[in-house]
Amino acid sequence: MLKPLGDRVIVSVEDEEEKTVGGIVLASNAKEKPTTGKVVAAGPGATNHHGDVVPLTVKVDDNVMFDKYSGTNVSYDGADYLVLHEKDLLAIVE
Amino acid sequence: MLKPLGDRVIVSVEDEEEKTVGGIVLASNAKEKPTTGKVVAAGPGATNHHGDVVPLTVKVDDNVMFDKYSGTNVSYDGADYLVLHEKDLLAIVE
Amino acid sequence: MLKPLGDRVIVSVEDEEEKTVGGIVLASNAKEKPTTGKVVAAGPGATNHHGDVVPLTVKVDDNVMFDKYSGTNVSYDGADYLVLHEKDLLAIVE
Amino acid sequence: MLKPLGDRVIVSVEDEEEKTVGGIVLASNAKEKPTTGKVVAAGPGATNHHGDVVPLTVKVDDNVMFDKYSGTNVSYDGADYLVLHEKDLLAIVE
Amino acid sequence: MLKPLGDRVIVSVEDEEEKTVGGIVLASNAKEKPTTGKVVAAGPGATNHHGDVVPLTVKVDDNVMFDKYSGTNVSYDGADYLVLHEKDLLAIVE
Amino acid sequence: MLKPLGDRVIVSVEDEEEKTVGGIVLASNAKEKPTTGKVVAAGPGATNHHGDVVPLTVKVDDNVMFDKYSGTNVSYDGADYLVLHEKDLLAIVE
Amino acid sequence: MLKPLGDRVIVSVEDEEEKTVGGIVLASNAKEKPTTGKVVAAGPGATNHHGDVVPLTVKVDDNVMFDKYSGTNVSYDGADYLVLHEKDLLAIVE
Repeated sequence: MLKPLGDRVIVSVEDEEEKTVGGIVLASNAKEKPTTGKVVAAGPGATNHHGDVVPLTVKVDDNVMFDKYSGTNVSYDGADYLVLHEKDLLAIVE
Repeated sequence: MLKPLGDRVIVSVEDEEEKTVGGIVLASNAKEKPTTGKVVAAGPGATNHHGDVVPLTVKVDDNVMFDKYSGTNVSYDGADYLVLHEKDLLAIVE
Repeated sequence: MLKPLGDRVIVSVEDEEEKTVGGIVLASNAKEKPTTGKVVAAGPGATNHHGDVVPLTVKVDDNVMFDKYSGTNVSYDGADYLVLHEKDLLAIVE
Repeated sequence: MLKPLGDRVIVSVEDEEEKTVGGIVLASNAKEKPTTGKVVAAGPGATNHHGDVVPLTVKVDDNVMFDKYSGTNVSYDGADYLVLHEKDLLAIVE
Repeated sequence: MLKPLGDRVIVSVEDEEEKTVGGIVLASNAKEKPTTGKVVAAGPGATNHHGDVVPLTVKVDDNVMFDKYSGTNVSYDGADYLVLHEKDLLAIVE
Repeated sequence: MLKPLGDRVIVSVEDEEEKTVGGIVLASNAKEKPTTGKVVAAGPGATNHHGDVVPLTVKVDDNVMFDKYSGTNVSYDGADYLVLHEKDLLAIVE
Repeated sequence: MLKPLGDRVIVSVEDEEEKTVGGIVLASNAKEKPTTGKVVAAGPGATNHHGDVVPLTVKVDDNVMFDKYSGTNVSYDGADYLVLHEKDLLAIVE
């Protein structure tokens, strides 16, 4: 299990399904990087200079939107995740 | 529905109508990026180091002006939006 | 009407009159960008981390001087304006 | 013994085992840098501007995940370690 | 009249007199930019985050020294001035 | 004697002994820069914005480890030293 | 007289004497820039955001060491000086 530190969240990013035409997979050269995903783990919040923890706003199972250049890609247990600071999340998708 | 986080606002940006001459659409190579739009969602405000939320000034339905290089373009439900930090908004257009 | 946000001011910038010699307009290749203008709108002031607003010093109708590389050019209602943070204003011209 | 200073942790990074096929070691040109390791030492925490120490969250023997470009590689007593600021750790792996 | 804003001062910079030999003006290719001048106007001081003004140290008529790459050159009423933040002044010349 | 200012320490860095084979000195083209040394002097600590001094953690005679690109090389009295901010020290070597 | 502002000090830097062999001055192509000098004037200290002055540690006549790329070279009354922020001084040489 991954437990994010500080103000980080771990997001599970699913590739958009590949489009098929009559069973033939269409290779997409310009396939966009996903910009939404589901929060699978959230850190306790950032620790400020006084040692206090400022809790996060997002929580596990929130669907979130982010810029395609944000965060760090990590692999764990055969799946790919994105680790982001909460401040790099743009919006919650409801 | 998109719920922006922190001090972000989501702006609906409409392309200027294409100019037509006698029904013929004029292709504009130098088409300017729009710099005004309507706020469709506003975040609760930034959380400061003490954990307090500083509310935003703009609200939903405000028409706002911004620099053409500001913000992040996102697509949601078939429409295009711009996500900006409130501090990157220049003015409210009344 | 444009209502600037935060610590911004909107300045109306008039091009210097073109110089003419005996009625002939002299094309100036090295035409300087204007560096003075009149404040047509001023924001309420910056909001600090505690949520307090720090009021601006300049006010509407002040003539102000600024660096030619400062601010953002915007168009509104057929006129051109410059939007600047108050801290980028150099001086009030009296 | 290495005693990290401030908010630093020292991580022991083991190369992934080389894959072998029928006893033949497969040379991997694209061998990834490791991005997980075990904390072997943790600093007391950062000293803030008032002279107070803000303790760390991670502790010795935690398995941690980090970006492959984070930290400083050091050698000590024949082994290789990575020295990182705690804020550069992404997650604890449990 | 120019009234500098915040922590700015306006300095009147006189070119060093050109050297002449027997009445012939010597062209100086490597003519140095002046690095001293007289303060002709001083702002009220910077406004801090609490809205308080921190007064300046230098005052009108002080001769000051500055780095030749500091400040913004402005023209006003036919004369050239340099506008600098007080923190970019190196020393008072007495 | 060198008395470091603020949060600086002065470290005496000894080159690793050159390896010899049968008395022949082996020129090492890829000779690594040293990354450990002994603290020979430590400053009183950084002065914060209130004028208070925050004391250092390391002390004279500590063996310390640092990144090979940290600090400033200085010569004094025929010997070479490295001057570093304490925050650029990675660990104490015991 | 030069009176440095804020947290600046003015240092008199003497070129190392040129080496001569039998009266012949040896041109040194790789002549090092001096990195020590004597403090000839010290500012009152930096003014913090509350308007308080934080006094300096070094005083006139201290011999100080600095990085060869620090500070601003100025000429005054026929002599060359270096103006530095106190935080750019490495050590006092006793």
